[in-house]
Amino acid sequence: MAWVPADKEGDFSIDNLPFGVFSDSNPFPRVGVRIGDSVLDVNALAGDEQAAHSLRSLAGIVGVFGHSSLNAFAALGRAVHRAVRADLRRVLAADTDLPGVLRDNAALRERALVPVERVKMHLPMQVGDYTDFYAGYHHAFKVGCLFRGEEHALQPNYTHLPVGYHGRASSVVVSGTNLRRPRGQILPAAAAADPASPVTAPSRRLDYELELGCFVCRPNEMGEPVAVDAADEHIFGYVLLNDWSARDIQAWEYIPLGPFNSKNFGSSISPWVVLADALEPFRTEPLPNDAPRQAYMDEAQKKSVFDIQLQVHLTTEQGTTNLLTETNSKNLLWSFPQMLAHHTVGGCPMRPGDLLGSGTISGTEPHQRGCLLERTEGGKVDVELGQGVVRRFLEDGDSVSIRGHCEKEHEGRVLRVGFGECVGKILPALQ
Amino acid sequence: MAWVPADKEGDFSIDNLPFGVFSDSNPFPRVGVRIGDSVLDVNALAGDEQAAHSLRSLAGIVGVFGHSSLNAFAALGRAVHRAVRADLRRVLAADTDLPGVLRDNAALRERALVPVERVKMHLPMQVGDYTDFYAGYHHAFKVGCLFRGEEHALQPNYTHLPVGYHGRASSVVVSGTNLRRPRGQILPAAAAADPASPVTAPSRRLDYELELGCFVCRPNEMGEPVAVDAADEHIFGYVLLNDWSARDIQAWEYIPLGPFNSKNFGSSISPWVVLADALEPFRTEPLPNDAPRQAYMDEAQKKSVFDIQLQVHLTTEQGTTNLLTETNSKNLLWSFPQMLAHHTVGGCPMRPGDLLGSGTISGTEPHQRGCLLERTEGGKVDVELGQGVVRRFLEDGDSVSIRGHCEKEHEGRVLRVGFGECVGKILPALQ
Repeated sequence: MAWVPADKEGDFSIDNLPFGVFSDSNPFPRVGVRIGDSVLDVNALAGDEQAAHSLRSLAGIVGVFGHSSLNAFAALGRAVHRAVRADLRRVLAADTDLPGVLRDNAALRERALVPVERVKMHLPMQVGDYTDFYAGYHHAFKVGCLFRGEEHALQPNYTHLPVGYHGRASSVVVSGTNLRRPRGQILPAAAAADPASPVTAPSRRLDYELELGCFVCRPNEMGEPVAVDAADEHIFGYVLLNDWSARDIQAWEYIPLGPFNSKNFGSSISPWVVLADALEPFRTEPLPNDAPRQAYMDEAQKKSVFDIQLQVHLTTEQGTTNLLTETNSKNLLWSFPQMLAHHTVGGCPMRPGDLLGSGTISGTEPHQRGCLLERTEGGKVDVELGQGVVRRFLEDGDSVSIRGHCEKEHEGRVLRVGFGECVGKILPALQ
Repeated sequence: MAWVPADKEGDFSIDNLPFGVFSDSNPFPRVGVRIGDSVLDVNALAGDEQAAHSLRSLAGIVGVFGHSSLNAFAALGRAVHRAVRADLRRVLAADTDLPGVLRDNAALRERALVPVERVKMHLPMQVGDYTDFYAGYHHAFKVGCLFRGEEHALQPNYTHLPVGYHGRASSVVVSGTNLRRPRGQILPAAAAADPASPVTAPSRRLDYELELGCFVCRPNEMGEPVAVDAADEHIFGYVLLNDWSARDIQAWEYIPLGPFNSKNFGSSISPWVVLADALEPFRTEPLPNDAPRQAYMDEAQKKSVFDIQLQVHLTTEQGTTNLLTETNSKNLLWSFPQMLAHHTVGGCPMRPGDLLGSGTISGTEPHQRGCLLERTEGGKVDVELGQGVVRRFLEDGDSVSIRGHCEKEHEGRVLRVGFGECVGKILPALQ
C-alpha cells in the first residue's frame, strides 16, 4: 500500500511504479512515475537535497530525470532501474521508513506530487527504430484463413522464426494523439482486372491492432547478437501499442516488400512504461510450438511471456462505448527475448529506445480477436454496437481505447499492475 | 577552378562542395566540405572572425557546424544550403574576391584546410528512419524474371506506385566500415519439403546492392502530405548506398512481411552528401511509364532524376580488382520527389536526416546489373574475376566499392560532380 491515494482501477499501485514523461504548469517535459492518481516528479524529487541524500540510487544520475525522454534513464541498465524503483517504493509505501523525505514534507509533496488531471503526457521514449513482429499466433492463423484458407493459413516459416518487419519510428505517438484517416492508393474490387486501375482515396478499411510494445534499454554492438538468455537484461519495459492499419492500402501495396503506407501514418503507445521488473510476478508460458527450436531461440526461462489481460473499447462520436476485444498477451508464439535474439542473430544493432511490437494479439474466440479485420471476417460481417449501430471498419470520430492489466493473489493480497490506457481518435481524411 | 589542388578524378571540384562530418588530430567530429584532396573545416572557418564577417551566410548559424552530424545544418533548409555553398565557392574560387579570408591567410588555411589523408570520416547524418524503395525498373524486372518468369516478372502494383519498405536505421554505417557476414535462418534447398527444416548458419549468398540514397532536410507534420512539386525543397542531398543483402536469409524470411534480417545487418553510405543544388545541371527524365499517373505523383518537373554514372568494383582479399557493374542512376521508374510524395500521401511524417534508398539500380545488359543475384542469374552462373577466380556471391575478405559521378560539357568546360567512394569489406561470420 502507498500513502498516496490509489487510482480507481488500481493499475498504478505501489507494485507497479511505471515511468513516463510529463509536463504540467512547468512546460518542460521531464521524467515522472505514476502512483495512484498522481504523478511523482522524479526530477523534482532527485533535485531535493534531503531526498537525494536518503535515496542512494538517485545519487549521480539526477541529470537523466530532467530529460524529455526516458532513453538516458533506460540506458543505465536494469540494475539501476531496479534500485531506483525500490527506492521510490520505499518512499511511497504507507509504512515508509523515510517519512520525512516526502510523505511528511509538505513543501516537496506540493512540488513533486502532481494530480494526474493536471499533467500532459509525452512520448516516453525517443524511438530509434520500431520493429513490428507477428507473434500473435491466433491472429496470424485467422488472417491466413481469411486470405488462403485453413490448410495454408500459416506460411512455412511462421513456426520457425518470429516473422517481423521494420516499422516507422517517426509516426509513433503517445496515447491521446488524434490520427488522421490516411489517403492512399487502393485497388477497388471492380478494378482488379488486368490492367489494374487503382485510385487514390481515403482508406475505407481502417483498423486497429491490439499489441504489446517492448522498449530496449541495453544496446548491442553491430555484428554482436544478443543471446536469448541474456535478452531480458536488454529490456526496459512494456507499453500497450495500437498499430493502426489501413487494410485496403495494405492489400494493394504489400507485395513483395511488406506493409508500408498502410501502417506508417501512425502507431499509438500508452504513456507509462511498465518496467520489466513489475511484470516478473506475472510470467507464464507462451503458446506451444511443435516446430524444432533453433538453438539461438531456445530459452532456459520457459515462462517467457506475461499474463496480461487486454481489452479494446470503441467509443463512437455519439458517445456509445462497446467492448470489442478481450484477450490476453499470453497468446504469443514467441516471447520478446526470442524476438530480440532473432532480430540480432545476424548482428543488427539495437539501441536504447528501440521499440518492438508483438504483432496483433488475438484469442481463438470471436470476442477475443484483436482487430476488426478478424472480427468482421475480412470486412464481411457487422460488429453490432447496439441501437442499430454497426461497424466493419473504423468511422471518423471513433475512438479506440486499449487497456491492459495483470492481477493475481499473492501472499494474501491482490497484486495488480496495469498499463492504463492507449487511446486514439480518428479524424476525417484531408480533402 | 579552385585554388585548392584538385583531386585526381575531379569528383570534388568547386562545382560540387559536398558536406560531411570528419575528425582529425582534433577528435571531435564536425562539419567539413570536401574540395579537391582537402577537407575544409567549416566549423573553423565560421569561427574565424574575419571570415564570419565576410561570409554573411555563416552569420548566426555558426553553431551547426560544430555538430557531429549534418542534421542541424540540413534542417535550416535549401535556401540556407544554397547561400552557404555559394559563399564557400566564393572563398575557394581561384579568382576569389575575398583572398584575405582564406587563400592568403596562412594561419587560417593551416587550421581549416585538412589534407584528406589525415581525416577520419563519420556517418554524415543521424538517420531517423531509413526507407528503401525498389524503383530500379530493370532490377525489379530481372529479379522478377528469375523468380516468376517474364510474364509475371513485375507485380501488378509496380508501375502504379514506388514500392518500398521500412529499413533499419541503426545499421546504416559510413563507407570504410567492415561488415560481418550475417548468420541467420536459411532453408537449404534439400530441406524445403513439408515440414520445412531450416538451419541457422552464416549466409552463403551474400550480395551487394548498388543504390542511390537521398537525405531529407525539411520535415512535414504528421497527417500533412508533401506535394510532389514541393518535394525538391525537402531534399538535402544524395549519397551512394550499398544495401548489403543476404539472399538465402531473405528467401526464407520475407513472406509475408518483407525483408528483415537479410538486410538489417548493415547498409553502407558514402561519407560526402552531394547537395541537391550540385546535381541540378545533371537532370534528366526517368524511364517511361505507361501506367496512368496518380495525381499526387504527377510532376511538373519532367527531368526529375539525375544522370549519374555508377560503378561497382570488387577487390578480393588477394588484391585483384574487377569492375562488376557499370550503370546509371537514370534507370529509375520513379524519382525521389515521387517517392517522397508517395511516402507521405497518407500523412507519414519525415524528419531531417531521414534516408530514402532508390532500390538497386541496374541497366538492361549483364554488365549493368546492380547486384550479384542478377549478374549470376540467381546464383547459377559464375562471374569471372580472371586467373581462374570466380564469384557467385561475396566471399570473406571481398571489398565492394561503389563510385558515382556526373560529367558534362558546360560553357566550354567540363563540369564534374562526384560522390567519391562507398566501400565495405566482408569479415568472416562469428563462429
